Amino acid sequence: MKVKVYVTLKKSIADPQGTAIQGALKKIGYPIVEEVRIGKLIELQLGEISVESAQQQVKEMCEKLLANTVIEDYSFELID
Amino acid sequence: MKVKVYVTLKKSIADPQGTAIQGALKKIGYPIVEEVRIGKLIELQLGEISVESAQQQVKEMCEKLLANTVIEDYSFELID
Repeated sequence: MKVKVYVTLKKSIADPQGTAIQGALKKIGYPIVEEVRIGKLIELQLGEISVESAQQQVKEMCEKLLANTVIEDYSFELID
Repeated sequence: MKVKVYVTLKKSIADPQGTAIQGALKKIGYPIVEEVRIGKLIELQLGEISVESAQQQVKEMCEKLLANTVIEDYSFELID
């Protein structure tokens, strides 16, 4: 089973990397971009596991290691 | 309009960060995880723009700045 985990900075947390990219995009001709936020996409390949168990274990992995829940939000989707 | 851009390493490119995370997950009790690949999720907030124009411009931004197309693949989706 494949899992896609999305980790994003919480709204209240400043994102200087995103701001830098927004500035760079503006400079090369894309003033249409008003805001940029950078997050992580973490793709997991799991062995044989039930959907319920995968849901539970991936949630645990996010809480324990993949996301810093003080400053980040996460979501994930199971694929096939 | 919001855009979510997903930037991932090409299959043929090694991902030492992903390998390190896979090792860490194994150590804390998740041997079910066989592979981890780390990518970027870039969220763009665009001003008033048509869907066609957004498609075209975001593609250009990916090619020029957001992705390194020598080693990375990208995809994106427009939201509302």
